[in-house]
Amino acid sequence: MSIPVESFYLKPAIPGTLQQQIRQMITDGVLSGRFRAGERLPSSRALALHLSISRITVTLAYADLMSSDYLTSKGRSGYFVSFSAPVHLDVTTPKRQRNKGLNYDHLTQRRYSQAPAIARPTDWQAYPYSFIYGQPDASLFDHQNWRHCAIRALGKRDFDSLTSDYYQRDDPLLIEYILRNILPRRGIDARADEVLLTMGAQNALWLSAQLLLSRQNDGARRHAAVENPCYPGFRRILDQMDCTISAVDVDSFGLPPQDIPTQVDVVITTASHHCPTNATMPLSRREALLKSANDQDFVIIEDDYEFEMSFFKPASPSLKSLDGDGRVIYVGSFSKSIFPGLRMGYIVAPESFIREARALRATVLGHPPGHVQRTAAYFLSLGHYDAMINRMKSAFKRRRQVMDDAIAAEGLSVAGQGGFGGSSIWMQAPEGVDTEVLATRLRQDGVLIEPGQGFFDAARGSFVPQNCYRLAYSSIAIGKIAPGIALIAAALR
Amino acid sequence: MSIPVESFYLKPAIPGTLQQQIRQMITDGVLSGRFRAGERLPSSRALALHLSISRITVTLAYADLMSSDYLTSKGRSGYFVSFSAPVHLDVTTPKRQRNKGLNYDHLTQRRYSQAPAIARPTDWQAYPYSFIYGQPDASLFDHQNWRHCAIRALGKRDFDSLTSDYYQRDDPLLIEYILRNILPRRGIDARADEVLLTMGAQNALWLSAQLLLSRQNDGARRHAAVENPCYPGFRRILDQMDCTISAVDVDSFGLPPQDIPTQVDVVITTASHHCPTNATMPLSRREALLKSANDQDFVIIEDDYEFEMSFFKPASPSLKSLDGDGRVIYVGSFSKSIFPGLRMGYIVAPESFIREARALRATVLGHPPGHVQRTAAYFLSLGHYDAMINRMKSAFKRRRQVMDDAIAAEGLSVAGQGGFGGSSIWMQAPEGVDTEVLATRLRQDGVLIEPGQGFFDAARGSFVPQNCYRLAYSSIAIGKIAPGIALIAAALR
Repeated sequence: MSIPVESFYLKPAIPGTLQQQIRQMITDGVLSGRFRAGERLPSSRALALHLSISRITVTLAYADLMSSDYLTSKGRSGYFVSFSAPVHLDVTTPKRQRNKGLNYDHLTQRRYSQAPAIARPTDWQAYPYSFIYGQPDASLFDHQNWRHCAIRALGKRDFDSLTSDYYQRDDPLLIEYILRNILPRRGIDARADEVLLTMGAQNALWLSAQLLLSRQNDGARRHAAVENPCYPGFRRILDQMDCTISAVDVDSFGLPPQDIPTQVDVVITTASHHCPTNATMPLSRREALLKSANDQDFVIIEDDYEFEMSFFKPASPSLKSLDGDGRVIYVGSFSKSIFPGLRMGYIVAPESFIREARALRATVLGHPPGHVQRTAAYFLSLGHYDAMINRMKSAFKRRRQVMDDAIAAEGLSVAGQGGFGGSSIWMQAPEGVDTEVLATRLRQDGVLIEPGQGFFDAARGSFVPQNCYRLAYSSIAIGKIAPGIALIAAALR
Repeated sequence: MSIPVESFYLKPAIPGTLQQQIRQMITDGVLSGRFRAGERLPSSRALALHLSISRITVTLAYADLMSSDYLTSKGRSGYFVSFSAPVHLDVTTPKRQRNKGLNYDHLTQRRYSQAPAIARPTDWQAYPYSFIYGQPDASLFDHQNWRHCAIRALGKRDFDSLTSDYYQRDDPLLIEYILRNILPRRGIDARADEVLLTMGAQNALWLSAQLLLSRQNDGARRHAAVENPCYPGFRRILDQMDCTISAVDVDSFGLPPQDIPTQVDVVITTASHHCPTNATMPLSRREALLKSANDQDFVIIEDDYEFEMSFFKPASPSLKSLDGDGRVIYVGSFSKSIFPGLRMGYIVAPESFIREARALRATVLGHPPGHVQRTAAYFLSLGHYDAMINRMKSAFKRRRQVMDDAIAAEGLSVAGQGGFGGSSIWMQAPEGVDTEVLATRLRQDGVLIEPGQGFFDAARGSFVPQNCYRLAYSSIAIGKIAPGIALIAAALR
C-alpha cells in the first residue's frame, strides 16, 4: 500500500524549517498509526512537486528519518515505513486527544445517548443459548437468492435505479409489489402515493411522530398515548420530542380504548400483535378504538410488526383494514423478515400525510438507497421472499413447540404468547425475582434472556414489574432450546 | 401470477351474505386494479378453508362472477381474472379516494412540503443540454467494479456485515479506510470513535444541526449563522428547526468572519469551496474564523463538499485541519463522488459529539445498511475509488476548459468559478433578466440551467438577485457544451 501524496500539507501553524515540517508530518503519521510498517512513501520528486518545495529538502528529510529508523529504502523502489519504526502505544494516544479541546456534553445536553435501551451483547452469537429477539438466523436467510437479486439489480439495465435520486418517488417496482402483494394480505387497499419507503420501521415511526407530535404553530404541545409496556425504540422517539406522553397499561387483549385519556392527538398501538406481550386485540376492541378515534378526533399509528410469522393461524387483519376515514397511519417493515441490517420499512397513509413525510425524509436523510430498493423488489417479485417466509414459519413453529414443551416441563410461567405464532414468549419469573440480576447471572451460563424492565414506562411513574422477561426463538438452534430453558429454571430455583 | 389467498378477509362492516361479500372482494380488487387480467384466483377449496366458510359458497360466488365476466375458468386449472373484465378508469378512482376521510394538511401543518427546492425535472436525461448539478454520469461511473465489490460484499464470508445491526459501530473496514486514506488528504487526523457514517451529507448536516441547534433544556433558542447564498438543503434543515437564523452575505473569499453576529452558537460554512459561488476561503480568513469561534465561543459546521474534484491544483486543506480545539464539526460525503443514490456521508467530530450523533441516528433511522457500507469499503480499499476520481477529474477538466472557452466566446458573465476545479460555474445574466423565466424558456430548447434565486435567503429579507444561475458540467457530454452555451447566449440576446 502507498501513502497518498495528498496526505501531506504544510501547515502554517507548525514552527520550524520545511525539512523539520516534513519530518514531523511523517513521524506524526507513524506514531498515530496512520502510516504503517511496510507502506511506501511518495517519491521525493512527487512530494516536492505536491508541496511546491525543492526536492533536496524532501530528500534530506527522508535521509534523516532513515537514520532514526522511521523509514527504510529499497534501492530504486523507494522509501517505506520501517518495520522497526517507533510505535506509539494506543493507551496514551487516546488519552492525549480526549483531554484536549471542547467537550460537547454541555452543548448537546447529552439528550440522546442517555435513553434506556434493551441491553444486548454485540457478541451474542458466541452464547450457546441465545433467547434474544430480532437477530438474524444465518441458517434461515436465503443468502444465495438475495445475492442473485442484488447482482441483477446492479446490472447495466438497472443503472438508473442504482444512481438515481429517489426523492420524489420510490422504486416503482418495489412499491407496486407492496401495493399488490403485501398490503392485500393485511386487508389494505392503497395507491402508490399513499406509500412511502423508510429506513426500517424505526424511521417510519420517527417520521410519523415528527409530523403528528411536533409543537403546533401556535406553540401548543401535542399529546401522545402509548401502550405500556411497549417497544422501547418507540418510547425513545417520544421522549426526545416536545410533547405530552401518557402511558396506557395494556391487558391481555392489548390496549383498552376506554383507558385512553381524552384530549390525546395520537395513539400508538401494536394492535395485531402487542409488543412485548404478544396479545392480539379482538375485533370488538378494534372497532371501539376506531370509534374513539372518530369521536375524540385522534389519529392512530399502527406498528404492524411480525404479521408474517403466523404459523398457527392466519394473522388477524390490520387495524388499518377497518379504517374508513384515514385515521390510521400504518407502519410495516421488511427489516425483520428479510434481515435486520436491510433497514427497509414503509408507511401507508393518506396522500396528504405521505407528501409531508416524503418532504421530511428528504430533509433528514434523502431517501433509502436505490439499489437496495431494487434488490428487494426482485427478491419479493421473484417469489424468494414468500418462500423464505414459509421456511421461517415452519422453523419457528417447530422451535415454538419445543419452547412450549420445555417451559411446561420446567414449570416456568408464561405471561403472554402469540395465538397465531410470532417469535418470542413473554415470561414471568416468581415474585421477588429481579430479571436484570437473573439475566446477568445467566450470561455466565451462556444463556441470553431479555429482562422486561426496559419495556415499561419508568419515566412517568408507572409500575415497573421487576420479574418479567422475554424469550425469543428467532435465532436459537432447536437443539439448544430445552437445555437453555433448563438452565433458566435452574437459575430461578 | 396468482392472487394470494391471504388477500381475502371477511370484513364485519360489509353488509350482505357471505356470497355477496366474496363477490364484492373480487370486484373491488379488479376495479381498483389490484387484481389484473389473467391472474389466477385461489381455488374454491383454498379460499373456503382460509375464510372458514363452506366451499359451495365460494363456488357460487365464482360462478356468479363468471356470468358477469369478471372471471373465466380454464377447465381444471382454475379461475382467472377475465381479460374482458370491467376496468375502472384511473380518473375516477383517485377522485373517490382523495375526497374521503381525514385531510392531514391541518394536522401536519404542511411544514415540510412547502420548503423551496431547486427545481429539477425528473426526466433531466432526456434534455440534450443538461447543465444541472450533482446528477450521475453513467459514462464515468465504474459500474463494473462497483458491481464486483457488491458481489464480494454479499459473499458468505461477509454474512455478518450483511445482516448485523450497525447501531454501536459502523463497518470497521470502511471507517479504517476513511481514517487512513480519506481524512489525511484533508489534513485531518482522527480516531474511529470520532467518525460516524450517515445517509449522505444531508443526513450528516441534519444530525449536527439537531444536536447543536435544538432548544436548550432551559427553553432558550439557539442561534445559527449560515452563508448567503448557500446550499438550499441546509437552509431547509434550519428552517424546520426552532432556532434563530442569521444569513451572512459571502464575498469573493467566502464567509467574512467579521460579519458574523455576536451571540451565535453555530456557524455553517463551505469554506474550501463555497456553494454555489465556488469561492475558496483564504488561510488568513480561516484563521480569523477559528479565532472568532474561540473568542465568541461558537461551533463551526464545515460542509467539505467536492474537494475530490481538484484538477487545476490541490484542494486547500480543510478548516478542520487547522482546528486544535475540536470546534469544527466536519461533514464529508461519497454520494456525489461515487454516485448520488448511494447516500453515504460521514461526520468527523470529538467523541462526545459523535456519541450523541450515533444515539440520535439510532432513534431516527437505525443505521446505514451494512452491505452498502461493506461494498463501499471494498470499492475504496481496492483502489477503484481513486481510479474513478482520477477519471472524473480528467473528464471534468476537459469539460471545464470547453465551458470556459464557450462562455468567453459567447461573452457570458462568470460570477464565480473554483480556482482548483469543481463541477459547476456560478453565472450572472445581465441586470433585469429573471433567470427563473430564462430557465423555463431554455427548457423548450432542450437546455437545463439552475436559476440562482433558490440559493438565496428570501425568508429573512436578504436581497435576492434575480439574474444569477448555475451551470454544472458534471453530467453533460463534452460535445454538447458549446452548442448549449450558444443557446443560452441566444436566449439572453
